[in-house]
Amino acid sequence: MEEVCLVNEGVKAKIIFLTEAQSKKLLKSYDVPVVEETIAPTIEEAVSQAGIIGFPIVVKGLGTKLTHKTERGLVKLNLRSAEDVKNACLDIKKSAGDDLEGFLLQPLIEGKREFVAGLFRDKQFGPVVMFGLGGIFTEALGDVVFRIAPVSEIQAKGMMEELLSKKLLGGFRGETAADEKQLINVLMGLSRLGMERPEVKEVDINPLLISPDGRVTAVDAFVVLNQENASIDSDWEKERTPQEIKAINAALDTMIHTKSIAVIGAIRPRKKGFRGMFGCIKDFGFPGKLYPINPKAEEIDGVKTYPSLVSLPNPVDLVVISVPAPFVPDALRDCVASGSKNVHIFSSGFKETGEEEGMKLQAEIEKIAVEGQLNVIGPNCMGLYVPQSRILTWIGAPEKSGPVSFVSQSGGHAQDFTNYANVHFGICFNKVISYGNALTLDSTDFLEYLANDDETKIITMYLEGVKNGRKLLELITKINQKKPVIIVKGGLTESGARAVSSHTGSMAGGEKIWNAFFQQSGAVRVSSLEEMAEVTEAFLHLGKAHGRRVAVIGTGGGIGVAAADSCAQAGLDLSVLPQEVTQKLRQFIPPAGNMIRNPIDAHILFIYLEMLGKTLELLSSKYIDMFVISLHLEWLYNFDNGAQIKKIATYIAQSARKHANGKPLVVVWRQYQPDPKYVKKRMMLEKILQEAGIPVYEGLHRAVFALSKLVAYYEFQRKQTDDKKKSCAGKKC
Amino acid sequence: MEEVCLVNEGVKAKIIFLTEAQSKKLLKSYDVPVVEETIAPTIEEAVSQAGIIGFPIVVKGLGTKLTHKTERGLVKLNLRSAEDVKNACLDIKKSAGDDLEGFLLQPLIEGKREFVAGLFRDKQFGPVVMFGLGGIFTEALGDVVFRIAPVSEIQAKGMMEELLSKKLLGGFRGETAADEKQLINVLMGLSRLGMERPEVKEVDINPLLISPDGRVTAVDAFVVLNQENASIDSDWEKERTPQEIKAINAALDTMIHTKSIAVIGAIRPRKKGFRGMFGCIKDFGFPGKLYPINPKAEEIDGVKTYPSLVSLPNPVDLVVISVPAPFVPDALRDCVASGSKNVHIFSSGFKETGEEEGMKLQAEIEKIAVEGQLNVIGPNCMGLYVPQSRILTWIGAPEKSGPVSFVSQSGGHAQDFTNYANVHFGICFNKVISYGNALTLDSTDFLEYLANDDETKIITMYLEGVKNGRKLLELITKINQKKPVIIVKGGLTESGARAVSSHTGSMAGGEKIWNAFFQQSGAVRVSSLEEMAEVTEAFLHLGKAHGRRVAVIGTGGGIGVAAADSCAQAGLDLSVLPQEVTQKLRQFIPPAGNMIRNPIDAHILFIYLEMLGKTLELLSSKYIDMFVISLHLEWLYNFDNGAQIKKIATYIAQSARKHANGKPLVVVWRQYQPDPKYVKKRMMLEKILQEAGIPVYEGLHRAVFALSKLVAYYEFQRKQTDDKKKSCAGKKC
Repeated sequence: MEEVCLVNEGVKAKIIFLTEAQSKKLLKSYDVPVVEETIAPTIEEAVSQAGIIGFPIVVKGLGTKLTHKTERGLVKLNLRSAEDVKNACLDIKKSAGDDLEGFLLQPLIEGKREFVAGLFRDKQFGPVVMFGLGGIFTEALGDVVFRIAPVSEIQAKGMMEELLSKKLLGGFRGETAADEKQLINVLMGLSRLGMERPEVKEVDINPLLISPDGRVTAVDAFVVLNQENASIDSDWEKERTPQEIKAINAALDTMIHTKSIAVIGAIRPRKKGFRGMFGCIKDFGFPGKLYPINPKAEEIDGVKTYPSLVSLPNPVDLVVISVPAPFVPDALRDCVASGSKNVHIFSSGFKETGEEEGMKLQAEIEKIAVEGQLNVIGPNCMGLYVPQSRILTWIGAPEKSGPVSFVSQSGGHAQDFTNYANVHFGICFNKVISYGNALTLDSTDFLEYLANDDETKIITMYLEGVKNGRKLLELITKINQKKPVIIVKGGLTESGARAVSSHTGSMAGGEKIWNAFFQQSGAVRVSSLEEMAEVTEAFLHLGKAHGRRVAVIGTGGGIGVAAADSCAQAGLDLSVLPQEVTQKLRQFIPPAGNMIRNPIDAHILFIYLEMLGKTLELLSSKYIDMFVISLHLEWLYNFDNGAQIKKIATYIAQSARKHANGKPLVVVWRQYQPDPKYVKKRMMLEKILQEAGIPVYEGLHRAVFALSKLVAYYEFQRKQTDDKKKSCAGKKC
Repeated sequence: MEEVCLVNEGVKAKIIFLTEAQSKKLLKSYDVPVVEETIAPTIEEAVSQAGIIGFPIVVKGLGTKLTHKTERGLVKLNLRSAEDVKNACLDIKKSAGDDLEGFLLQPLIEGKREFVAGLFRDKQFGPVVMFGLGGIFTEALGDVVFRIAPVSEIQAKGMMEELLSKKLLGGFRGETAADEKQLINVLMGLSRLGMERPEVKEVDINPLLISPDGRVTAVDAFVVLNQENASIDSDWEKERTPQEIKAINAALDTMIHTKSIAVIGAIRPRKKGFRGMFGCIKDFGFPGKLYPINPKAEEIDGVKTYPSLVSLPNPVDLVVISVPAPFVPDALRDCVASGSKNVHIFSSGFKETGEEEGMKLQAEIEKIAVEGQLNVIGPNCMGLYVPQSRILTWIGAPEKSGPVSFVSQSGGHAQDFTNYANVHFGICFNKVISYGNALTLDSTDFLEYLANDDETKIITMYLEGVKNGRKLLELITKINQKKPVIIVKGGLTESGARAVSSHTGSMAGGEKIWNAFFQQSGAVRVSSLEEMAEVTEAFLHLGKAHGRRVAVIGTGGGIGVAAADSCAQAGLDLSVLPQEVTQKLRQFIPPAGNMIRNPIDAHILFIYLEMLGKTLELLSSKYIDMFVISLHLEWLYNFDNGAQIKKIATYIAQSARKHANGKPLVVVWRQYQPDPKYVKKRMMLEKILQEAGIPVYEGLHRAVFALSKLVAYYEFQRKQTDDKKKSCAGKKC
């Protein structure tokens, strides 16, 4: 690779631009196909060089201070003679004045299809590559996509695929499809440039032109450098060392399996009503040593009370701080002094307030925590909920442990999600960590721990912002290959972002970059706690989904339209059944009142249940990948006062999955009437099916959404594997 | 206006194209600014004319058979001399051969901003005007919008506003904003053309060029005519006469207030379980004469049975047919013979099956019904549910009458929606009509009736397709000014459309045209029965919404981000409160634990309720248009075992609306835990508030969505009024 001199000593502007020629030279060294060009210091030289290059030709003014060249009249296109070139140079000289350093000559590249590509550095995610529709449409249509560097070949292809204007990249109106290899080179080249050259702040290639023959050329480009000696103030670069990671893992392990807890700011729990941190932990039956700290009490709830942390006989595994914000600094100093290094700060009133006082307090406690080498969960959060260790800082959470862990920036969501998922799907949790303002420990630290935690089969997350976005991307991409990571990202919209900074004080990235994050990591994206529960339930019980062909089998009018609309929205294929299948179905399903298209709207399958089994067998043999059984409960109830509902539930629980060849199968109920007799039957149905590991949803829409997330996850895994194989081809991997 | 000869006798192709010159002449007569042009029959004439027009110039081949001119090399741009023109003409002559009828000369119009405009005829909606991004981007980006003719000035502006690429219409990169008046002329001109000239099948203007000075020019255009004598087979043109409408209204009135019903195919209701049409009507306490018709029974359920309709003493107000499809034709013949003209066909097995047998049967019954002048609701539907008349053909619907009517193409949805809305919001219905395949009576007939029905304050609809789309648009636009029409449109997606044709046999229009329908009619669009209930509840109880500024006032972590995300998605403004307000709030709300941004996340307001009142008063005085009060029930419960929840509900019920100056105010609850003690409190809260006419929603998202629909409705009404005033200015209206 050709070495390029990046520092442009002659210029002292605050932002350092490379000249167009320097920019292109740099880009060329990173595999970007740039237009061939010649520099002429004088007008005479320009005219003479133009004759050598040939006409039509383009002449541009050259100079580090010359930006916005088109607007300033410094770009002259389609010059057809030596005289044209001379006049153009004179014009340029007049416009540019003293800033002119020379002329750039290029052959005129033809092409109607203008794209744009670029690179910039995001505070959370570091170097990010951009690609989109160029020319006058860049700002008007905003059809641009992003990927966080490093960008792999498959990810580069994904960028093209994601553009609304992707049709323009294909063969179009008699023009050849864009050279895919060249486009990939541009995007991967920008990515490498971002990774290898920290001094490059921004790159903008506009237009990246597609010629009628499909050739790709960077016709214009500029590169912006960081100021010499500028400190790079990006959170994403604060990497932990392997030793630090190991130490944090050990600390988390101690906290999660804590044997002793001290609660600073313990209060007497009210008999009924608010119980405080101490009361909640005690209520949940924490079996280890529990020390209430309160200088104004002798005992609380029958437990001996200590005036301060330093008065305890030994350091504890976990300190919970629950005092008003102004007292937190002293509490933390006590932690340092007493050698209790692991802390959960429940208290709020810090950065999340957005007010000066809170910001100052947060800076103060950060200093104490960092200098004292404390491991802090919080402040402004609910800390840990670990059923196996009997740790819980609120009331009403399920006592049973399960295979799902939850990492939540919001304390409210930690309580709400665990309850909701448990009530509606019987989902139980292994480790729940609510971490609020992320003073010293951030989501990435918890993920490092959970990545290797065999008890955790599925990771769920509620995220608002993250300090080290690259680390998050890297970790989740890795974890995702072993177990799914399901994420609600709060604060995606513009005014959402405002409230994020109010809620936990983190800086949330723009929607487009987070979109890139999801595309690249393969994390399963959901938009509410309810959806997260629904999707978690699907991952917990359904095996691999091998394709997008869904059959909906049900009873009751209107399911046809609803199923078709839901599947289309979720990108699933409500496949038309081939005639060979419908013919076979018609051998045992009578026509009257039984429609056997897809959806199959056939009452009789739910009266003679072996017909349902036969249908599943036939469809799953090779035509269909996933099944939704949709039950209209009032309708079914009318047969025989609900006895049939139990038979159906039992049949599905015992044998439907077998008939479906083990392919993903879920049940959907609809029920609109208030009568408790229906509700009772529905709860029985849910219980029978959930115990058999068959997900049950209210309404088709939810079921289809969950299945779409399942299939997308496995598609992503397959793509990753292919990508890896491809990049390893011929190498040792 | 200049008269234009449309019939092009020389051509006998199946589709008749006007030449470019003819097309432009026609368009010019409808106010479309076309490029000035000259026709030259020979090359010599072309060269001489070019000299007069001046260079640069464009030459095109002319001829009715010459389409796709660019691809065939029949367009020569940027000709700069007489010689250029001569060569171009020779080239064109060579390519076009015998089809060439002459040459078209135009000055070269410059401009980078290419748009497209056009007209076509939709089977359901008749003439539809199109506008969008042109040039190579039309197909690649699909950024086009539609409006059903006639298009008003405000609607034309709406088309521009709706384009993704609308920025290109404004001042852009040094070019002047497009001349709005000219664009409006183009779109309204196309609309008039569509309305006045039925012989015009299609118009395509591409490009409609915006010059750097903002001038708008139709540079290329073509017009397609209907074949001479072609029968125009569009449903939308089958208009009913005023006499017919009057007769149908009278018939519906008779059916809705029916005094006598005969059920053909009456069966003995099972004691528990399926009760049949006869059983359902009897169960609901129909007070009039009820005749079971069944040749094989003497009596059913203690009621004397008749062998056939003709054996009844007199004609009845309503005949309900509930026999298998093949027996329906005979049943209808009996209706004709007996003089019972009003019929509900419950039976299915017709067009909705998509099978030949069913199609044939439907054609047969249509013939009988039309010839016998029957008024038929159905087939394949649930018919009427009118609590006041005690008519119901299913079981379990609420007995109480209310102010909402529902017109549903699906019978299942008629049952489900009325139950759901009643259970969740206590909504009661006035008239529910489920009409299935719409044999003779369609949604438009029911709307005509409900438009003038003073008992109906809100109309809700479930629509899949409609025969006369223009009539639907016209009716709903009119009704909407008096009372809201809230619609779920099923079958919007491509595969949804397939299932629509399976479910009721109607042809559903494309998503983009239905989008135009909603934009133009102002109908309130929702996407599920649940949303329809939520939005109906808002319209039932909340007054006019005057603006989009929302305040969310609540308790519990995480509401900030959720509120911001929900409001941004719904297009509401979660306004930042000005300092003068926060200063006043801080005079009575202490800082600790109480955030007073918007959302206002302040526990204390729910402890000292007069503070809530004070806050509402301050905000509603001039800063905020709508209020959401968000209650986290588990959190509130923890205060005092729920006693506070009742106090809050009562306070809000009694005085919150007054404190909010009568502005729209709704309550949201969140509750995630299964404990019946919470559920009980929640149901009490709902009851107290609903009885006071304050809508209560589960979760912020639903409340914000409902409010967004409310405010959009009133915005639309205001716009309509402005539009009317404008178009009446200086005229007598």
